[in-house]
Amino acid sequence: MIKFAVLGHKGRMGQALARAIEEAGQEFCVGVDQGGDPAPVIGQCDVAVDFSAPAALVDNLKAVTSAGVPILIGTTGLEAEHFDAIERAAEAVPVLQTGNTSLGVTLLSALVQEAAAKLGPDWDIEIVEMHHRGKVDAPSGTAKLLGEAAAAGRGVDLASHREGGRDGNSGARSEGAIGFASLRGGTVAGDHSVILAGPEERLTLSHSAENRMIFARGAVKGAAWLVGKDPGRYTMSDVLGL
Amino acid sequence: MIKFAVLGHKGRMGQALARAIEEAGQEFCVGVDQGGDPAPVIGQCDVAVDFSAPAALVDNLKAVTSAGVPILIGTTGLEAEHFDAIERAAEAVPVLQTGNTSLGVTLLSALVQEAAAKLGPDWDIEIVEMHHRGKVDAPSGTAKLLGEAAAAGRGVDLASHREGGRDGNSGARSEGAIGFASLRGGTVAGDHSVILAGPEERLTLSHSAENRMIFARGAVKGAAWLVGKDPGRYTMSDVLGL
Amino acid sequence: MIKFAVLGHKGRMGQALARAIEEAGQEFCVGVDQGGDPAPVIGQCDVAVDFSAPAALVDNLKAVTSAGVPILIGTTGLEAEHFDAIERAAEAVPVLQTGNTSLGVTLLSALVQEAAAKLGPDWDIEIVEMHHRGKVDAPSGTAKLLGEAAAAGRGVDLASHREGGRDGNSGARSEGAIGFASLRGGTVAGDHSVILAGPEERLTLSHSAENRMIFARGAVKGAAWLVGKDPGRYTMSDVLGL
Amino acid sequence: MIKFAVLGHKGRMGQALARAIEEAGQEFCVGVDQGGDPAPVIGQCDVAVDFSAPAALVDNLKAVTSAGVPILIGTTGLEAEHFDAIERAAEAVPVLQTGNTSLGVTLLSALVQEAAAKLGPDWDIEIVEMHHRGKVDAPSGTAKLLGEAAAAGRGVDLASHREGGRDGNSGARSEGAIGFASLRGGTVAGDHSVILAGPEERLTLSHSAENRMIFARGAVKGAAWLVGKDPGRYTMSDVLGL
Repeated sequence: MIKFAVLGHKGRMGQALARAIEEAGQEFCVGVDQGGDPAPVIGQCDVAVDFSAPAALVDNLKAVTSAGVPILIGTTGLEAEHFDAIERAAEAVPVLQTGNTSLGVTLLSALVQEAAAKLGPDWDIEIVEMHHRGKVDAPSGTAKLLGEAAAAGRGVDLASHREGGRDGNSGARSEGAIGFASLRGGTVAGDHSVILAGPEERLTLSHSAENRMIFARGAVKGAAWLVGKDPGRYTMSDVLGL
Repeated sequence: MIKFAVLGHKGRMGQALARAIEEAGQEFCVGVDQGGDPAPVIGQCDVAVDFSAPAALVDNLKAVTSAGVPILIGTTGLEAEHFDAIERAAEAVPVLQTGNTSLGVTLLSALVQEAAAKLGPDWDIEIVEMHHRGKVDAPSGTAKLLGEAAAAGRGVDLASHREGGRDGNSGARSEGAIGFASLRGGTVAGDHSVILAGPEERLTLSHSAENRMIFARGAVKGAAWLVGKDPGRYTMSDVLGL
Repeated sequence: MIKFAVLGHKGRMGQALARAIEEAGQEFCVGVDQGGDPAPVIGQCDVAVDFSAPAALVDNLKAVTSAGVPILIGTTGLEAEHFDAIERAAEAVPVLQTGNTSLGVTLLSALVQEAAAKLGPDWDIEIVEMHHRGKVDAPSGTAKLLGEAAAAGRGVDLASHREGGRDGNSGARSEGAIGFASLRGGTVAGDHSVILAGPEERLTLSHSAENRMIFARGAVKGAAWLVGKDPGRYTMSDVLGL
Repeated sequence: MIKFAVLGHKGRMGQALARAIEEAGQEFCVGVDQGGDPAPVIGQCDVAVDFSAPAALVDNLKAVTSAGVPILIGTTGLEAEHFDAIERAAEAVPVLQTGNTSLGVTLLSALVQEAAAKLGPDWDIEIVEMHHRGKVDAPSGTAKLLGEAAAAGRGVDLASHREGGRDGNSGARSEGAIGFASLRGGTVAGDHSVILAGPEERLTLSHSAENRMIFARGAVKGAAWLVGKDPGRYTMSDVLGL
């Protein structure tokens, strides 16, 4: 049995992770929450799963690095400083950071990259997502992940092609833009669509999650896979062999 | 035969209007474009259809008012000053201002109002629209019209409940918000969805236009209906008897 | 506390009902399953909820009629004989038979009826639904309910306008037909769309259920509402005051 | 300039082809319709495009074979006998038979094959399409093409896994089935969705055509590409270099 530390274990995903760990026949080792310090306890565990908050991530990475414990990071809303910390941590331990741990989204991401690579500049790319009313960051981590896939397919940098939050007389779409829009409401677990709009035809590649358990199960699967790997960065595609 | 003035007749909608006027067996009277002045010519026509631009609207309204010619306004991206000018014009001539002239959207608007009226505050309302890559304003006039219908159904003011352009760590959805999101790409004539997201279930009420001709045909039908009416403001629901 | 009999209580919906009864602070009285006889036990309960199977329904109705217990029937796949038995039972006890117990679908049904009433014969009506891979009847009870609403809006009889299961060179659509299509797969709790397809525009009115609990909660709410009513037939619209 | 024969040139697609040939700066050579015989005239042309009807196809193939003229076949509703005739014709001339000539569908087909190959047997595949009210065959040629792609991805034969036209108490979904459903209404040019429904998550890969011209343009592009090729069978993927 693999022993799991759950960082952010009182949140919705934390609770789902506890159930998924049990479902998978693995062992829940420790749970750490806001204000708690993982450093003294993390060493008892085989792997950590972080669905806490951006503010907690840097300390969590220090703790797993010191203890030599691999980590899967599903926390969203990350900024440049967090990605820097992730890079440093990956020199010491196996790290898998992802905006989405489901099989379906991991495959969708590959399909989006392929479609973006094949379609010329007369096809526009838009990404729209919907999540429950309580989600605080926009666009979702999964939407960003899909945007990165589209940008990779086109061989461009997402940051310089990103167009989000249209509101007002903002002018026509920029050439080559990758657009984002975020819907919030109800209890939606997570819907994402990548729309490729060409001249008089449209391709739409979508994923819909019925509930949070698919992400928790995927995270448990991914974290288990990290145990025993060399330090470095890994992806859900690696885990799923896509 | 009714004689139609087309204000903004070189634009895409202007061209569609010319075809729709011919299809309906009516007469194209004059076309006026950016830099042109409708005042000297509008008096020869029975009715005006305006799909020009917000900047041209105030002068166009003066011209139809002086000449006593009814007007249907389909131009979008209007601000408070334009609505003031529309109110004044409606004291002198029949005026129909609408974000959408199609039968389907007019009916959708009534359904949205009814649904919003029946569903309690645990149902969130989101409006998402997609238009072609060249559209410069967001959200679309039709999206605003649907938002007004939702607000009317709830008995609230749209301006103070509107939430648009989510981008960044903007916090959870405001209670009672009516959200807007705009997608742009390809040659899409106009798709709109009103999503009512409740606890573990969702209603989605959508309209899809295959091409611009439906709007042109509806505008010609609406403008023809205005001829001979008393001064005042009218709606597409009046025209269609909904 | 209201005491609930659950007829068909080992099925998926029966299990969800047991949870919903508990959630609502009511009392689970007895559960009856295939091969079991409700007659000796039903009299101890205040109301019955039937999500069993068509084959069991006639005996279940006899039992509730003899005992004077109101019944909510959510079992689908009913034929004429079952509807006859329901009519007879409604002379003795309050009966609510419905293809769907959710608030969203009940409202959707009203919107569909209104849209069908307003749109002329150049608008075609199609109903498409998706449910999990194990569902044995098609179309779903909810799809039929929505079809009845569309037929009522048009003032026609559904049976003589129904068009389902297109497969092969079956010729063009019949004028005035109400079409049905059924998708099956995965764990989908229930998605329904009513498409009204007109000349170059389309309205789509959809409902999506995230899980079965919304139906169980609605059934518990509806059954509780039946207690103390006069004999007769009731609908979810009555329960929800739509 | 390439000279095009249009077989079935009075139909909707025939008319669209005439426009697309002109748009592409190519030459319309001859048009043949029901009751007409292509044999005496086809030899004057460089390539034939067939959007006639299954009943005409065998004679059309004889004519192009005798004259040594390549042919692109977009006619749908074909049976085994037609495919036999196509195989024989391909020994003499270049032949491209396809259910869909658009770039978007050709790419979609590749994505569907890849997704079907990657997802295990706990993911169910359903294909749903919508076309205008006058379409006489179901499912559409494009839906079959997408079904073939899904079957190829899974390494199975479509004919023995096809499940269509569900209607009645038909039992649960067969394991490994590829399901089809057809919607008809209005003026819809062609919408297709391939739904991959897994445990608590769903991938949907869709294409929407705004009008028939995209198929006509793709057919003209494909037919032009056939000129000068060796006898044999070709696909739209070959044409588009996917």
